[in-house]
Amino acid sequence: MRERNGGPHTGLIRLLAAVLLAASLGGCAAPKKAPPPPPPPRPAPTEARDVLELPQDIAAYFTPAQMDVPVLAPQDQARFAARLRELHFAPWHRAKPAHARVSAFWGLAGRGQAWHYGENLRPLGPDFRTQMQALARPEEYPNTMRRAITTANTSLRVLPTVRPGFLKPSLPGEGYPFDYWQNSGLLAGTPVLATHTSADGAWVLVEGRVAAGWVPVSDIAYVDEGFVAQWESLPLAAVTRENAPVMAGFAEEGTPPVHLFAGRIGMLLPLAGLDAGGATLLAPARDAAGRAVILAAHLSPDEAMPMPLPATPRNFALLAGQLMGQPYGWGGYLGNRDCSALLLDLYAPFGIFLPRNSSQQAKQGEWIAWQGLPPADKEAQLLSRGAPLLTLLHKPGHIMLYLGRRGDRAIILHDIWGLRTRDEAGKEGRFVVGRVAVTTLNPGAELPDVARAGLLLPTLDGMTLVVPPQAAPAK
Amino acid sequence: MRERNGGPHTGLIRLLAAVLLAASLGGCAAPKKAPPPPPPPRPAPTEARDVLELPQDIAAYFTPAQMDVPVLAPQDQARFAARLRELHFAPWHRAKPAHARVSAFWGLAGRGQAWHYGENLRPLGPDFRTQMQALARPEEYPNTMRRAITTANTSLRVLPTVRPGFLKPSLPGEGYPFDYWQNSGLLAGTPVLATHTSADGAWVLVEGRVAAGWVPVSDIAYVDEGFVAQWESLPLAAVTRENAPVMAGFAEEGTPPVHLFAGRIGMLLPLAGLDAGGATLLAPARDAAGRAVILAAHLSPDEAMPMPLPATPRNFALLAGQLMGQPYGWGGYLGNRDCSALLLDLYAPFGIFLPRNSSQQAKQGEWIAWQGLPPADKEAQLLSRGAPLLTLLHKPGHIMLYLGRRGDRAIILHDIWGLRTRDEAGKEGRFVVGRVAVTTLNPGAELPDVARAGLLLPTLDGMTLVVPPQAAPAK
Repeated sequence: MRERNGGPHTGLIRLLAAVLLAASLGGCAAPKKAPPPPPPPRPAPTEARDVLELPQDIAAYFTPAQMDVPVLAPQDQARFAARLRELHFAPWHRAKPAHARVSAFWGLAGRGQAWHYGENLRPLGPDFRTQMQALARPEEYPNTMRRAITTANTSLRVLPTVRPGFLKPSLPGEGYPFDYWQNSGLLAGTPVLATHTSADGAWVLVEGRVAAGWVPVSDIAYVDEGFVAQWESLPLAAVTRENAPVMAGFAEEGTPPVHLFAGRIGMLLPLAGLDAGGATLLAPARDAAGRAVILAAHLSPDEAMPMPLPATPRNFALLAGQLMGQPYGWGGYLGNRDCSALLLDLYAPFGIFLPRNSSQQAKQGEWIAWQGLPPADKEAQLLSRGAPLLTLLHKPGHIMLYLGRRGDRAIILHDIWGLRTRDEAGKEGRFVVGRVAVTTLNPGAELPDVARAGLLLPTLDGMTLVVPPQAAPAK
Repeated sequence: MRERNGGPHTGLIRLLAAVLLAASLGGCAAPKKAPPPPPPPRPAPTEARDVLELPQDIAAYFTPAQMDVPVLAPQDQARFAARLRELHFAPWHRAKPAHARVSAFWGLAGRGQAWHYGENLRPLGPDFRTQMQALARPEEYPNTMRRAITTANTSLRVLPTVRPGFLKPSLPGEGYPFDYWQNSGLLAGTPVLATHTSADGAWVLVEGRVAAGWVPVSDIAYVDEGFVAQWESLPLAAVTRENAPVMAGFAEEGTPPVHLFAGRIGMLLPLAGLDAGGATLLAPARDAAGRAVILAAHLSPDEAMPMPLPATPRNFALLAGQLMGQPYGWGGYLGNRDCSALLLDLYAPFGIFLPRNSSQQAKQGEWIAWQGLPPADKEAQLLSRGAPLLTLLHKPGHIMLYLGRRGDRAIILHDIWGLRTRDEAGKEGRFVVGRVAVTTLNPGAELPDVARAGLLLPTLDGMTLVVPPQAAPAK
């Protein structure tokens, strides 16, 4: 029965209705002369104590003297940056797809996908899979081999559709926003290899620096030799202001500047000029025929800086501070980040490459396994051997960044969905944090339902010391 | 703790896990020699009986002799079509916004919007409103007065953001997918007036034929006098194949055809040529500077036809058949339709204008009020006075199309989210139909939880006989 009653007046009515509803649910007006009602039960906490009590600012975990001391030696950082640059452009230098058919089309596997639910919260059913199969036409893979670049902040999708695939929404930690067809976010200006086109021409399977997936053809533009040569002739700059508008001006009379896309932390674009007024970057745009053109975009000094930025706590705090509190987004949903995307984007401006998911990220350095270690020993080892800002913590499905100590507790930065809970009846649920936060290794330990289900620290299985690549790549 | 474990192998593991989970939940292997377990409780129905038993095809409700008899006289249809055309182009002929500031910015009203939840299922909070206020800068309204056209199928948003605003997700019928910042779908090729631009240049407030809202600037292109003159010089064609790819070819050597957007039922584009091979339509595209260019797109004979189509049951069945079963989408979410959008888009190819929401739609003709009438009398009146395909049924928040009779029951077509339910303990919920369906006036009457909460027919407050405009507009 539910439908759109849109428009301004309905909006006001809806507003009023919501207020009235809230009032009626609150039960605020006690009947006259009745005895005072018993005090209402204390409302359940909506925040973990860590988030309320720990400074949500990286700078708080460093002394003023530490703030401008790089955590990486210049020659190590140069090695990192050379590798990141090589991997960034790698999709343009592939003669064949890096992904085999079986891995490019795993979303089509299975039998009818009865366990996936659509946006109407009903099973997607076998018709959906048939439709996806016909659009994806895996038997022709790869039917396209063209170099391209993203011209919008977009998503890598598991299937050529904007429709979601939820696991059973009634399961704890499932349903919205955990769309399993959402593979990864993909920033504008990313070199990609287009390997395959959907039957209707609307979707293209692309390989980028860290992941592959389907993107709308309108979010990429095809590049030619001249574009690639110009793009690769310059050093890279990192966007350092989240959502800085990337605008292009035009020499032509009567053509106002145009907004191309939002700059995002993690975005890398060629640096064409730099002075006290800021940076001039190359920005890609798409023409009406789907070809890439190069436009110049000017960003202010705090919006873009040469990559790599000096790896100082001050610069980490500058970037992380803009991401703090941002909503969690599984697989880059709505342009948000999940735990691994947070670290991937936070490290890129410093020239440090990280792969796409948490288990891969944990392998990017020296892995110290914690299996079988008592929780207190894990924390002690982290405090003694971990290098702040250069140590990753892992448990299956989650990755975190070690910031340092506060008293005798280790402090971490992570993008966290929720803490597993178990109520008194034994029913499992989630206490949703749902954002980028600074916590101890046991966030929510004070919440009985969280404590019953088990804390974070005991589940950590190791830490990774991020170390530079063995040698600068030959390229 | 939840994060992306993407990639092909994880996908397979996930698949396996889902299968194992399904198996373990199913409890399929009984222990050896144990007594046979009691029969499992009968699973709750997942479909309303109407949807299972009534033909989900308009043609089933007409005799073969009726199928090709227009339900509208040609002169009446011409009046309808002239009015639709005028209203379609109207946003290009406005010297000032049709929407006052208070109605253009109602999403900013309220106090902190504590009752709206974001994509992480937590309250959006006052920071969100502050951020929206700064982006929308209502004090400057209107800061832009430019004619434009949509170059993609997009959404009209209440606020300049892709982030959702849910009412409390734990309330029945609230939470995903009911994003209150989603105002309406907006098809490609729609003439709009851009009245206002967000502070970051990324969003533009536009007025279209039936609604206004924020769209990403990348989904529109600005038109000049020449574009408008050429666009308005031709008759309009209606897209008659849902998701027909609208592709443009290029004369230039080495430039392959490009997919512009998906054709959708309800889409109107200028008709430049028509022969036995199909229709040549004008299609809009956006150049790298945000200007609109006109491209030619060829569609096959069943993909596009001159507007208005003959208003025969066969043509209604042709179009409605493609929409049957499509998922419900509040305010056009993911390009889906809600109840009023279904009728708006189904009527447009026949030249009949409908406004955006159900209460406005119910006023587009001769309204026959049913307040106080016993349910049986309502149905009897509908069966005696209602004209199949030209009679709308209304209850607050829902609109339906009368198809005709089957035996002594009236049959309707509608896009329906859910039926209100009340379980034995009195708890309210929804039985989700979640799609376009053909039903009686009391779908789900056989479901005890639905019967307890109340059926549809008693809540209908009237019917609307769709009648032609008084005279052809002067234009």
